[in-house]
Amino acid sequence: MVIKPNSMRRENITKMRGGDGEVQILHLLEKESLLGKARLFAKLTVKPGSSIGLHKHENEFEIFYVLSGEGIFNDNGTRITVQAGDICLTNSGENHSIENTSEQNLELLAIIVLL
Amino acid sequence: MVIKPNSMRRENITKMRGGDGEVQILHLLEKESLLGKARLFAKLTVKPGSSIGLHKHENEFEIFYVLSGEGIFNDNGTRITVQAGDICLTNSGENHSIENTSEQNLELLAIIVLL
Repeated sequence: MVIKPNSMRRENITKMRGGDGEVQILHLLEKESLLGKARLFAKLTVKPGSSIGLHKHENEFEIFYVLSGEGIFNDNGTRITVQAGDICLTNSGENHSIENTSEQNLELLAIIVLL
Repeated sequence: MVIKPNSMRRENITKMRGGDGEVQILHLLEKESLLGKARLFAKLTVKPGSSIGLHKHENEFEIFYVLSGEGIFNDNGTRITVQAGDICLTNSGENHSIENTSEQNLELLAIIVLL
């Protein structure tokens, strides 16, 4: 099956997970296509000055693949500058947040895999 | 954990799955980080004129997310032109192949999820 962007579901979330500003979510695949193996497979666009607040994952892990832009990833308490090409992996029991500290969009591919 | 591109494993494969030319694989995450839930999480670069040959997936599904370039995806017998932003989903029991018909690299994020 091929899915084109114009048929993908879009969401705009303000103050996502207690963060600032706005994050756009483009659902590349819906949950039912992920067959109970993952609960999110999406492109996230974090606007300049926006962030996803600190939160914990349990019984699942999340991968961010940075597609474009630059930001600061809080990796369970350690702040690391990330840019296009980087992977941010948050295992079960860990906390993370990410903020866009640049003047262009920060685009992430995000996948939450269920354990 | 943050993983930078310079510490990711790279492979060059010629005639991948019986296709033509060369495909570069950048392993964004190694198998052990995928905790038995997936067996590939990589960026594939299909060079101009190159392809990944037709093959079947069983007891797993594969997602291609087209990052850049253009190609023809054979979706279980149906040939579809794909470009940046498109998703190609191959479920268990289905065949697929992909060829780069353009003059720039075709870049794909590829994930094989185990059922």
